[in-house]
Amino acid sequence: MRLAIDVMGGDQGPGVIVQGAAQAVLAHAELELDLFGPRQHLDAEISRLPQPLAAAASRLKLCDAPSVVRQDATAAWALRRGQQSSMCAMLRSVAEGRAAAGVSAGNTAALVALSRRELGMLAGMSRPAISTALPARAGGRCYLLDLGANIDLPAERLVDFAFLGAAMVACVDGVGRPRVALLNVGAEATKGNVCVREADRLLRKAVACEAVSGKWREIDYPAFERPDFDYVGYVEGGDIFSGGVDVVVCDGFVGNAVLKSSEGLTRMLVERVQMAFESTLGGRLASLLARPVLKRLKQELDPVRYNGASLLGLKGIVVKSHGSTPAVGFYYAIRRAMREVEQNLPARMAASWSRR
Amino acid sequence: MRLAIDVMGGDQGPGVIVQGAAQAVLAHAELELDLFGPRQHLDAEISRLPQPLAAAASRLKLCDAPSVVRQDATAAWALRRGQQSSMCAMLRSVAEGRAAAGVSAGNTAALVALSRRELGMLAGMSRPAISTALPARAGGRCYLLDLGANIDLPAERLVDFAFLGAAMVACVDGVGRPRVALLNVGAEATKGNVCVREADRLLRKAVACEAVSGKWREIDYPAFERPDFDYVGYVEGGDIFSGGVDVVVCDGFVGNAVLKSSEGLTRMLVERVQMAFESTLGGRLASLLARPVLKRLKQELDPVRYNGASLLGLKGIVVKSHGSTPAVGFYYAIRRAMREVEQNLPARMAASWSRR
Repeated sequence: MRLAIDVMGGDQGPGVIVQGAAQAVLAHAELELDLFGPRQHLDAEISRLPQPLAAAASRLKLCDAPSVVRQDATAAWALRRGQQSSMCAMLRSVAEGRAAAGVSAGNTAALVALSRRELGMLAGMSRPAISTALPARAGGRCYLLDLGANIDLPAERLVDFAFLGAAMVACVDGVGRPRVALLNVGAEATKGNVCVREADRLLRKAVACEAVSGKWREIDYPAFERPDFDYVGYVEGGDIFSGGVDVVVCDGFVGNAVLKSSEGLTRMLVERVQMAFESTLGGRLASLLARPVLKRLKQELDPVRYNGASLLGLKGIVVKSHGSTPAVGFYYAIRRAMREVEQNLPARMAASWSRR
Repeated sequence: MRLAIDVMGGDQGPGVIVQGAAQAVLAHAELELDLFGPRQHLDAEISRLPQPLAAAASRLKLCDAPSVVRQDATAAWALRRGQQSSMCAMLRSVAEGRAAAGVSAGNTAALVALSRRELGMLAGMSRPAISTALPARAGGRCYLLDLGANIDLPAERLVDFAFLGAAMVACVDGVGRPRVALLNVGAEATKGNVCVREADRLLRKAVACEAVSGKWREIDYPAFERPDFDYVGYVEGGDIFSGGVDVVVCDGFVGNAVLKSSEGLTRMLVERVQMAFESTLGGRLASLLARPVLKRLKQELDPVRYNGASLLGLKGIVVKSHGSTPAVGFYYAIRRAMREVEQNLPARMAASWSRR
């Protein structure tokens, strides 16, 4: 398996990305990675790889791409001026089939815009949706989308997201009949803005198509056939973590705010727990005793493990890593891309999408 | 101090509310509470109060209000048909000066609409904003507004919220110069939707008014004079918990999603921590040793302690309790109302607002 990596995106510079890539090839014998970035950066970071990561260098192919899409660049700038960038070169290698998937920790708006142009969209999709998993109760997880690519959406896009999210969960996580919900400010039918209420109406029509024997086809929204998911209606923010739903759909502004605040809250809580345990002798003894427990907990809940958001609706696999992730987080983003390749996500998504 | 309590709002029935009210009068010798609800419910719940709460009964005045605003009622229904409701009667007693503040755990949309009609708004405000504090790093807290009353807002309302939030933090928490931020999907100027970018422009003009010597007054937005806060620009969701800002302003849909997801995430994390500690002998021993630490942590971070959201922009004090809170949470909502009364919030807010 060969994947393409944009080395220049992360907030902490290319070193972290190259280290994460090296970890990935050492952990997965079948993996080869093409690293895209300015030649001098690539050479410098490879030569700086510490042992035992340096052993990975032979399976990291360096691909010169002279320019960089900066974090503060607009999508329009990236489309017009980003042709020589590491991000664009990485995406082109996916589009041309040289790599099975691409991973970047760079500018989200640019990645979305360039992915759309270089890889193309499933028929009827206008822009990729970004989705990632969040941990939920009882060891579960819930996918949230969209996470920032799409703002001020029409209701039909939220309906598209429900189909995309359901198809992704079915394909990558093997869930037979995903439970899909719309995020709202209350469970009652009267709550929410016009867009969410309209999306709810369309989804109810879509999933109830057999019951009403085709009548809903008279509406102007394109016909759905046998959607492969259960639409459970509105949920509130807290339900994302309840374990009761597999996919929660919302506008990109809302999803981004929920994701970032959840990460910030987790960091703050972990810090508070550590400080509290450190502050007393009993606490320090307890944390020694509980070290294995705390270690396992951290592993299960660490946002770094959930790093790697999928760009859905593309005719190919692109995974967005957090810009500020450490090397191990970038490794998890590569793992996410590998899983989507193994499960043949684009082809199965396209099949599910065409049945829509 | 006399406060008015709507007994009929909570998801768990009036019992929890009456118990919370009894806790409050027992804890505060100067407090008297008027309880509004259908007479038979009030009598039944008072007679059911367990010891030692039953001792509070003499300072709980029962005020018959025959009807109830249900959780699924619309604001329009409440305005038209809710005249005899416990919520409306409670608000009327605040409007008429019989009580210094009102507290309800009921239907948010109805509470906002009825508060606005019964108490009236500060000049120039159209609807109340809902705000609550969330715990932040290093023992801090951050107020988030709006939390669900205002959806699909024009940019000028977000600017109003910045002023209201800053005035509230200055008054109730004694912060000299609150740091106020706009919630966005990134810190770069190019990010976000049209409304947020316009609010950012207006706020930058407002806080920079002295530097540009009045030039910005030429725009059509009403002039601000010497705002009593620092506008720090855009923040992302994670910054709510970073301790770096006092007030974060956003649309009600976004704020509600962030608040509810934060509560859900905290519940999930606490559950996971408990399960992890229970699962091994070392963990069980550790949790015995760490019991005082864990107890203090729970006290510091428990969402129940942060229960009690302020309705800002009214000519009076109304606090919204979570519908699903236990009795102790309702007690904290009453405490919030007491603090706002002690700090004379409406008068100081009006003064700050008129200087705007």
